[in-house]
Amino acid sequence: MVTTLLTPVGDAPWSTEEFESRLRAVPEERYHDRHAFNIRMHSGALSQAELRCWIANRFHYQRHLPVKDALITAKLPTPALRRMWLRRIQDHDGLEEGEGGIERWLRLGEAAGLDRETLLRGDTVLPGVRLAVDGYVNFCRLRPPLEAVAASLTELSAPDLIRTRVAAFERHYPWIDPDGLAYFRSRVPQSRRDGAEALRLVLSWAYTRKDQERAVAALRFACDVLWSLLDAVAHEHCPEGS
Amino acid sequence: MVTTLLTPVGDAPWSTEEFESRLRAVPEERYHDRHAFNIRMHSGALSQAELRCWIANRFHYQRHLPVKDALITAKLPTPALRRMWLRRIQDHDGLEEGEGGIERWLRLGEAAGLDRETLLRGDTVLPGVRLAVDGYVNFCRLRPPLEAVAASLTELSAPDLIRTRVAAFERHYPWIDPDGLAYFRSRVPQSRRDGAEALRLVLSWAYTRKDQERAVAALRFACDVLWSLLDAVAHEHCPEGS
Repeated sequence: MVTTLLTPVGDAPWSTEEFESRLRAVPEERYHDRHAFNIRMHSGALSQAELRCWIANRFHYQRHLPVKDALITAKLPTPALRRMWLRRIQDHDGLEEGEGGIERWLRLGEAAGLDRETLLRGDTVLPGVRLAVDGYVNFCRLRPPLEAVAASLTELSAPDLIRTRVAAFERHYPWIDPDGLAYFRSRVPQSRRDGAEALRLVLSWAYTRKDQERAVAALRFACDVLWSLLDAVAHEHCPEGS
Repeated sequence: MVTTLLTPVGDAPWSTEEFESRLRAVPEERYHDRHAFNIRMHSGALSQAELRCWIANRFHYQRHLPVKDALITAKLPTPALRRMWLRRIQDHDGLEEGEGGIERWLRLGEAAGLDRETLLRGDTVLPGVRLAVDGYVNFCRLRPPLEAVAASLTELSAPDLIRTRVAAFERHYPWIDPDGLAYFRSRVPQSRRDGAEALRLVLSWAYTRKDQERAVAALRFACDVLWSLLDAVAHEHCPEGS
């Protein structure tokens, strides 16, 4: 079936079932699990330098997640919705010093031989990664809540990817201390919950076909951000220990 | 002593003590405790309609506080700073349904005979109040973290104002159920903590005279927002029960 995002104003909205299936079709087509660099990662083909390069650059994405989630929180109109979204900021930043996803990613870096201070300075972050992350943060800053929340629906595909990743790391990259994989383990239930919450919001907020199409486009955009990040890492020569 | 905000670039920064005293001088001069409407409120001179008008319009300000605090959170560069500021969002929105400053303000409105649904609809909010609140939120959205945080230093003057207000309400407006004053009681320790935290940040972030002047100007701006809100309420004819 050929579908197009461009339809005349006033087209009837899709049924909830069709809308959801169109949303779910986006990551099936273009989530970054299909990117050549991710396929190489999961097959054990990456050098230590390549894997470190990915960890350092993906950290730039990770540390901006609470920023984009605070921007989304500021768009939500009720205390109940903000309370829900606030938890995502806490998941990344932790409830206390030494907790949270950002801290766990730093430990992943250390387990892979990357210096915490280097990661925090961020001076090995590639220009294409900076642009991708800026683009994502600015999308969430500037677009309406429906689109900013729809962009987060990449979470729907994260649990499967992460489970595969943990198994791949344990099998192919034994030089990384398994304790360093705590980030991934903690993200599986968080992603499942976050994806389901965001999906409920998007399904209930998009009344018109135009809104539904905007939500689908937002999710495509978020997939493109993740894809571009891997493009930049894949095409970079990553010196050992960078 | 005559001081001016406009000084040549490169002037030596004020000492921390002088900077702090210049910050503290701002609300002494122009905090809304000096506004004629507030003086009338605290002296018991407001009619029921006027007090209800203030409660309904100030609610528009209250409900936007977690929005501006989420925008500030998004500007803060570390998990530790964001954790600190996140607590402010939680103070307003509550940790659970039925808690938090916004809920307590709704109960103040109910204690004063205002319908919760009317408050939530916001259709009695005056244009000048909308403009003042939009101005404050957009300031926090668009200005650097130093200025957005400095604008919150009105909190330094809040505990005294609130204590006076609670006494005035209990004495002059016995038709308001004292349980409705819970908002004010909870705000005294929160404001004290928030003001001290923000002051520490502003004092440590402003390295140059220009930055120090920008912080002082931001605090003047925040005082102007509160003042304008009372201007709009004072000059409005507020029909009984509005």
